[in-house]
Amino acid sequence: MANPILDKVAIVGYEMTDFGDLYEMGIADMSNMAINGALRKAGVDSNEVDALYVGNAGSGQFLGQEHLGCLIASESGIYTNATSIEASGASGTAAMRIVTHGILSGYMERVVVVGVEKMTSLNKSADTQEALATSLDTIWESSMGATLPGNFALMAKAHMREYGTTREQMAQVAVKNHDHARLNPRAQFSNKLRIESVLNSKVLADPINIFEGCAASDGAAAIVMMAPDVAESYDSEPVFLRQSHQTHDYLSLQQRPNLHELRSVRKGAEMGYKKLNITAKDISFAEVHDVYTIAEILAIEALGLVAPGEGGKATEEGKTSLNGEIPVNTSGGLKARGYPIGASGVAQVIEIMDQFKGNAGERQLKDIEWGLAQSLGGAGGTSVVSFFSR
Amino acid sequence: MANPILDKVAIVGYEMTDFGDLYEMGIADMSNMAINGALRKAGVDSNEVDALYVGNAGSGQFLGQEHLGCLIASESGIYTNATSIEASGASGTAAMRIVTHGILSGYMERVVVVGVEKMTSLNKSADTQEALATSLDTIWESSMGATLPGNFALMAKAHMREYGTTREQMAQVAVKNHDHARLNPRAQFSNKLRIESVLNSKVLADPINIFEGCAASDGAAAIVMMAPDVAESYDSEPVFLRQSHQTHDYLSLQQRPNLHELRSVRKGAEMGYKKLNITAKDISFAEVHDVYTIAEILAIEALGLVAPGEGGKATEEGKTSLNGEIPVNTSGGLKARGYPIGASGVAQVIEIMDQFKGNAGERQLKDIEWGLAQSLGGAGGTSVVSFFSR
Repeated sequence: MANPILDKVAIVGYEMTDFGDLYEMGIADMSNMAINGALRKAGVDSNEVDALYVGNAGSGQFLGQEHLGCLIASESGIYTNATSIEASGASGTAAMRIVTHGILSGYMERVVVVGVEKMTSLNKSADTQEALATSLDTIWESSMGATLPGNFALMAKAHMREYGTTREQMAQVAVKNHDHARLNPRAQFSNKLRIESVLNSKVLADPINIFEGCAASDGAAAIVMMAPDVAESYDSEPVFLRQSHQTHDYLSLQQRPNLHELRSVRKGAEMGYKKLNITAKDISFAEVHDVYTIAEILAIEALGLVAPGEGGKATEEGKTSLNGEIPVNTSGGLKARGYPIGASGVAQVIEIMDQFKGNAGERQLKDIEWGLAQSLGGAGGTSVVSFFSR
Repeated sequence: MANPILDKVAIVGYEMTDFGDLYEMGIADMSNMAINGALRKAGVDSNEVDALYVGNAGSGQFLGQEHLGCLIASESGIYTNATSIEASGASGTAAMRIVTHGILSGYMERVVVVGVEKMTSLNKSADTQEALATSLDTIWESSMGATLPGNFALMAKAHMREYGTTREQMAQVAVKNHDHARLNPRAQFSNKLRIESVLNSKVLADPINIFEGCAASDGAAAIVMMAPDVAESYDSEPVFLRQSHQTHDYLSLQQRPNLHELRSVRKGAEMGYKKLNITAKDISFAEVHDVYTIAEILAIEALGLVAPGEGGKATEEGKTSLNGEIPVNTSGGLKARGYPIGASGVAQVIEIMDQFKGNAGERQLKDIEWGLAQSLGGAGGTSVVSFFSR
């Protein structure tokens, strides 16, 4: 890139709906609930908004509804530049990244990003696993029977073989994230999950059990992003997006040199650390893309939060728990806070905002300096790593 | 908007595939054929590209393939920031607009935009009319039986009632665009179309006949966009995107105050004229979104190229023909050049480049100063109007 120094963009207002089965709300309704909440908290009127970006991965698949930018604009009162951004599970943070360009180019001052997905009330012809598999390579993977959990299962097997990672260590990711979610009133699942329950739950795709994956979920999350000078008059202590790196690996697993690491995530993290002149040791907490338990282990290794191969052990030892050295997914993560796909990246940022703003209640961290959000598209073909600080 | 002065972004290399039934090529293959052609013509190596943006409207619907940014990146050698932009039929020009922010923010110097669609070799469960209807409001329109041609038919009826526009005037749009396409070696349809054939063809949605709509089509179109100072070393006489405005109307027709005008297009055009300090009279030629014949009539009126209500008459009188006062769709338009949805906006820009670069062969215009491209999402809920000059 020419000049990849992201100066900084402020995040002022933020809001999300509950995540879960929101039967009574359409995708535009839930988007606008989040958007209006975020605008109200920011103190911004909808007619002051320069653009609306929508992170969404599957409304065409799940609902037969594309052209979501215009749909949500129609009902939100935001009429300029309403565009959908799709990068599979990383759609929300990919949209945020694009907004930084709009703001830093001087074209926009106040921009709303909404991430949204509605996965529980499906269009007549929709099938959830088929919809998830559209994030894989149709020709070389999904048409041959590959599924999203199947691909992560291959990665889990590779990690177990390479590093001796155990089923118990993977299961512990789910246990920890449920423990965190119990402290998050917004989480979809607030039940205590015992490791035996995870290990004895049905096989989803060996070695991944069903309690190691996310449930289909509805929900929306919105933030208001602003130029730093504009933000000053809305928030005397704003939180800033300081760097955001979108990187890629081959879409289909067969093309990758190995399956036990997320190369896309490592590349993005390294780019960010270098630009910010920090290291992984400076990260105070992280929200990572635990779409399956193995994905969290792969993520914390690729981000450098633990050494390669140490992700399972670190989880087992509590290093990534709320009171551990590097708390990961204090929100409950995709696993327990919930995973409406397109909403996910923005929801990660909302947890980061809650932590920086002291709004995290019983899961509040102390003395935090750097927060990190990591989202994944498909089985790691796309990664967005974003860095936040005051 | 804060600072809506688009200084300018250069377009250097450009290339498109044939449009039509490209059975032998996957969506990534055809994308890369266009991308590699554009890079070669620009003299840019794929590893010098800062980002890839993909304009696509329906690959999830047509092919069961989402996550298209990563798929195309996987096969193109462009690994940074490959993201899909969706704004229905305006996806390609919406992507271009987003790229201007990336370049003008100083983050990117060389960016590829590819627009692509594959509509003729469908996924098992795909249905073309259903896929097109995902651009309408699922709850209030398509689930009640509304279709894309049905919505344009309502707009056509309203225009006929309001202004006395005739079936013959609408049919003449198709006749003219086929006449133009006969001079374009890249066009999907190079047959002479007689007005009687249009008027006697099957009814698609009264008063629109089947020869007044576009055929399902495959194809890709790519351009390389650059910062002006960077472009200097690639092209001594670059063509510039000078303004680009994305604007919206209500998604569903029932919410609009009337159906005989495209308010979204009018708003975007007026914003552009004002910023550039020009009027519609300064436009030398335009590529407009003639998804159905009535759409071209509505577009030229909303752009101010003809007075409200005069679009049908102007077409009949030859004002918008190649040798007329204001040539419209010299490429053959969506109707005859072809309409792979996501590729469409970029293909419009390729015609504009061909005209500015003197590569338009028998359809070459003389003494052109301003070129305009107008794309529509759905039945006019989204509009992107882009202005080009040397």
